[in-house]
Amino acid sequence: MSDYQKIIEHIHDDLLRRKSYGEVASYIPELAHVDAEKLGVSLATVNGDYFGVGDWQDQFSIQSIVKVLLLSMAYTKLGGQLWQRVGVEPSGTPFNSLGTLEHDKGIPRNPFSNAGALVISDILLDLYDDPRQAMLDLLKNITGDKSIGFDPIIAASEKAHGYRNVALVNFLKSLGNINNDEEVVFNLYLDCCSISMNCLQLARTFMLFANHGQTLDGKTHLLNPSQTKRMNAIMLTCGFYDEAGDFAYKVGLPGKSGVGGGIVAVLPQHFSVAVWSPRLNEKGNSYRGLKFLEQFTTETEQSIF
Amino acid sequence: MSDYQKIIEHIHDDLLRRKSYGEVASYIPELAHVDAEKLGVSLATVNGDYFGVGDWQDQFSIQSIVKVLLLSMAYTKLGGQLWQRVGVEPSGTPFNSLGTLEHDKGIPRNPFSNAGALVISDILLDLYDDPRQAMLDLLKNITGDKSIGFDPIIAASEKAHGYRNVALVNFLKSLGNINNDEEVVFNLYLDCCSISMNCLQLARTFMLFANHGQTLDGKTHLLNPSQTKRMNAIMLTCGFYDEAGDFAYKVGLPGKSGVGGGIVAVLPQHFSVAVWSPRLNEKGNSYRGLKFLEQFTTETEQSIF
Amino acid sequence: MSDYQKIIEHIHDDLLRRKSYGEVASYIPELAHVDAEKLGVSLATVNGDYFGVGDWQDQFSIQSIVKVLLLSMAYTKLGGQLWQRVGVEPSGTPFNSLGTLEHDKGIPRNPFSNAGALVISDILLDLYDDPRQAMLDLLKNITGDKSIGFDPIIAASEKAHGYRNVALVNFLKSLGNINNDEEVVFNLYLDCCSISMNCLQLARTFMLFANHGQTLDGKTHLLNPSQTKRMNAIMLTCGFYDEAGDFAYKVGLPGKSGVGGGIVAVLPQHFSVAVWSPRLNEKGNSYRGLKFLEQFTTETEQSIF
Amino acid sequence: MSDYQKIIEHIHDDLLRRKSYGEVASYIPELAHVDAEKLGVSLATVNGDYFGVGDWQDQFSIQSIVKVLLLSMAYTKLGGQLWQRVGVEPSGTPFNSLGTLEHDKGIPRNPFSNAGALVISDILLDLYDDPRQAMLDLLKNITGDKSIGFDPIIAASEKAHGYRNVALVNFLKSLGNINNDEEVVFNLYLDCCSISMNCLQLARTFMLFANHGQTLDGKTHLLNPSQTKRMNAIMLTCGFYDEAGDFAYKVGLPGKSGVGGGIVAVLPQHFSVAVWSPRLNEKGNSYRGLKFLEQFTTETEQSIF
Repeated sequence: MSDYQKIIEHIHDDLLRRKSYGEVASYIPELAHVDAEKLGVSLATVNGDYFGVGDWQDQFSIQSIVKVLLLSMAYTKLGGQLWQRVGVEPSGTPFNSLGTLEHDKGIPRNPFSNAGALVISDILLDLYDDPRQAMLDLLKNITGDKSIGFDPIIAASEKAHGYRNVALVNFLKSLGNINNDEEVVFNLYLDCCSISMNCLQLARTFMLFANHGQTLDGKTHLLNPSQTKRMNAIMLTCGFYDEAGDFAYKVGLPGKSGVGGGIVAVLPQHFSVAVWSPRLNEKGNSYRGLKFLEQFTTETEQSIF
Repeated sequence: MSDYQKIIEHIHDDLLRRKSYGEVASYIPELAHVDAEKLGVSLATVNGDYFGVGDWQDQFSIQSIVKVLLLSMAYTKLGGQLWQRVGVEPSGTPFNSLGTLEHDKGIPRNPFSNAGALVISDILLDLYDDPRQAMLDLLKNITGDKSIGFDPIIAASEKAHGYRNVALVNFLKSLGNINNDEEVVFNLYLDCCSISMNCLQLARTFMLFANHGQTLDGKTHLLNPSQTKRMNAIMLTCGFYDEAGDFAYKVGLPGKSGVGGGIVAVLPQHFSVAVWSPRLNEKGNSYRGLKFLEQFTTETEQSIF
Repeated sequence: MSDYQKIIEHIHDDLLRRKSYGEVASYIPELAHVDAEKLGVSLATVNGDYFGVGDWQDQFSIQSIVKVLLLSMAYTKLGGQLWQRVGVEPSGTPFNSLGTLEHDKGIPRNPFSNAGALVISDILLDLYDDPRQAMLDLLKNITGDKSIGFDPIIAASEKAHGYRNVALVNFLKSLGNINNDEEVVFNLYLDCCSISMNCLQLARTFMLFANHGQTLDGKTHLLNPSQTKRMNAIMLTCGFYDEAGDFAYKVGLPGKSGVGGGIVAVLPQHFSVAVWSPRLNEKGNSYRGLKFLEQFTTETEQSIF
Repeated sequence: MSDYQKIIEHIHDDLLRRKSYGEVASYIPELAHVDAEKLGVSLATVNGDYFGVGDWQDQFSIQSIVKVLLLSMAYTKLGGQLWQRVGVEPSGTPFNSLGTLEHDKGIPRNPFSNAGALVISDILLDLYDDPRQAMLDLLKNITGDKSIGFDPIIAASEKAHGYRNVALVNFLKSLGNINNDEEVVFNLYLDCCSISMNCLQLARTFMLFANHGQTLDGKTHLLNPSQTKRMNAIMLTCGFYDEAGDFAYKVGLPGKSGVGGGIVAVLPQHFSVAVWSPRLNEKGNSYRGLKFLEQFTTETEQSIF
């Protein structure tokens, strides 16, 4: 068990010795203010142990990682009916592409594209009285951290520069796949993206997907085992945009990345692991996050494959 | 263990009671001659047990399932260098699409599209003196069945009607990603697609991918453990054309389908399972094969997720 | 000369005798209120004669026809520099498509797509103190009708339902090809689309393109002869969305259509002709408008070809 | 009249003084052997006058220019029925693209793409006993040059390296839009592309399209006036691949280019003009040919617009 601590420390040190590549996300000014050299890792096991190294207790913007939680909140209530509004196929295109939507008549290829997450946000507005509060309640219950909330500066900055997302939500509306007011949908989505968490909190949250849909203490029950398995499948095939195949190939774990530099991955029935390093490769995924996970599954020989 | 026998029999019977849908592949006359109502299943475990039900001992044309073996034969010799010629990303397009090739400058998105398999065939011609013989040797060694061979009638029929594949190989040649004579490449690929096997033989062959790259007796060693893991990842993300996400979602196993109606899937370190039923859904995957595997992983609660 | 009156009357009567097809544009409620059976034609010659038949003096919403005037207002000031922001190639896609923009890095294929017209509107905001007033002044000077103005009900309705255009202008903004506030651009474009004119007024306005860029009285001089020639070329290759080739083939005149049911076309150095009939074919062009012009150029044997 | 001689001489001299750009077509070795600096022009008027300058009496490979003649030979026999097999819309894509075919179910966007010309070749095989002989007869009758024929070296070279065209014809066959043997179609098309002519012969041949479909002496009657008008329309919208809009904009004449460096254009009821200069721009059209025609229509102020 304490092997995990040694392994993550050793890979952490390895990565710091090697040059990092990529750029911090700069499409919104606020995200660019982060220290590019940060590197944190936290791993939590289904036995209740947890480990951490580096900047694992620093908060960072989880961004697209929240798409997994948004989807889970919709899926637990709607079940398979959900797939009438969004697909489960990898798209082979970047995260913010509009290209396939026209061909697919407004049905996003998967819920982890921006288009898909906007449709899920629209669905949540119909399913929950207050989806923002429901999201925060979920995260507070899991992590025990009552301070978790939306980051109003990040959210405002993202809304002010979110032309592509405005384009997407209006395009979806024109294609008939947004029921609510498009600005309300847009705001809900970007508020959720602005949530800050640290590596340990993220690892604990994604323990849900390693532990049949519930927290280890059994108090929070988000999904049933069958739904959890399916969430992991979607993470594996769609969690890394047009780098999903490469992530499966190199890492071999279901997971999800965000442009804040976070990546979280799970080995079902074993562990969840969160890595944070702000420099992104050209596909928009954390450069060191990917390197860490690749080395981790190679050294431990633990993956779903 | 004998639970497996009960489960596959019970699902087999279930499926026979329910209406089957889809059509037998008819794009080449010879494939259309098969009995549409056939249904066979065989499961082999890493303990050396095997099970079968229905038409599990009937031979059928494995078609695209051979792409996994072609890739393995190239990968074991070339390693990661292989990925300069073909990608590992799901394409989001049908198996015989030319659409993305133009954009991607002749690099097929993945080795399980027809374009990808043609590039792999071209590579094999450079790596093996006699790739046909190498393929047959591999299969004969694994199955112990010395009668395994190419089906000249299927192969001839497919070559005579293979306009799309002729188009693909010439298109790849024009884009600089075929070194050998395009007809030689085309013929090698279609000969390999014409191989006939039964469910048990297929399950035993794919035991390689459940067993770290080697047969249970250790006599045939095709891949190392790391390569095997990566092969499984590619099967999961790319094994079912534009239905790969759906297969991961519903079944949750790496696998590969063929238009002959076969599907083979593996649970690494546990089992491999082959199903055969000739009626195909609109994505070109066996209708009953998918149904069988979905029910099987649901009932056994065994999947990689 | 009076032959023209006979010919347009005869074709008008012919069309009324035959069944009309297509649907009135309904994507905004206000446009759908029009009488679907209206049919008006007006032809003006470079000799100063004009002719009319049917509902030629009824006002209707000119919609995309205004794109030609927007472009002219930008072209006369910027000249060829304009083409750094928008192309002159037919797109082969519908008028409101986003598909090619992603590939073309925000440069619309031509100025008569909605994307192109939004970029032109953005340019006009930089070139004119008050582009709305400049547009109205132009039309009032040409037609002598001081009542020409924006239709606030049409404009408001279009803005309220213009999700696709909101998507386009935000997408263009995200791709760096909109300088001004995206809402300001959007509003200018839709205000201009809302202008109402009748067939005679339209024919007189487009006399500019039959008469070397100026009105017959020489008082309004919008373009020089070389620019006028080029405007006609763009109308011919791009004026009818993905039906441009068909219009050139059947009619053989430069022209432009709008979803209000208007089509205006010119034979340089000879005449301009405006037709209005609200039912649109599936490409968004007036069904009877196309039929009229095809029959007209066939019977008169007058076309640019 | 003799003005034409002065103008073409003066533009010819202008062009020779300025640097030429672009590369000679090299995708087949034989085409690359031509002298890159050649420049010839010939203009023929409907009055029977003709003019020439530079290398106007040198033979060169007409290549895709022959597509106009192939289409005419099919159109005169089939009429509008032809358009069930091929469209008349500009494609917005390069000449040898396969991209839109898949979407359009095997119907090429227009007859001047390679795909379109292959379909036309297939049609000719059904319409003529010996389409090769019919083509040669046509050209010999028009030009009076009995030596016009296929160039077996060019044709053989093109067939040996024509992977993209093999891909296209097989792709079309797989999509059901080729009736004859695909190799027979491919050979007919490439034989016709290999024809050599000089500028004067080309200008005289395309006089057909300036003169209502017949030669000036009335002996050869290829098309009726209405068909001729429509051929000119298709040349204008589709004659220059994805540079058609630009050619219409800059030159303003219907025309067709070939990768041998030839361009031929017509002003209906006035003249036809052929230019030859082997260096091609990046769109595959003659660099100096375009420059010549742009300057010519600008200086003469003669164009269809």
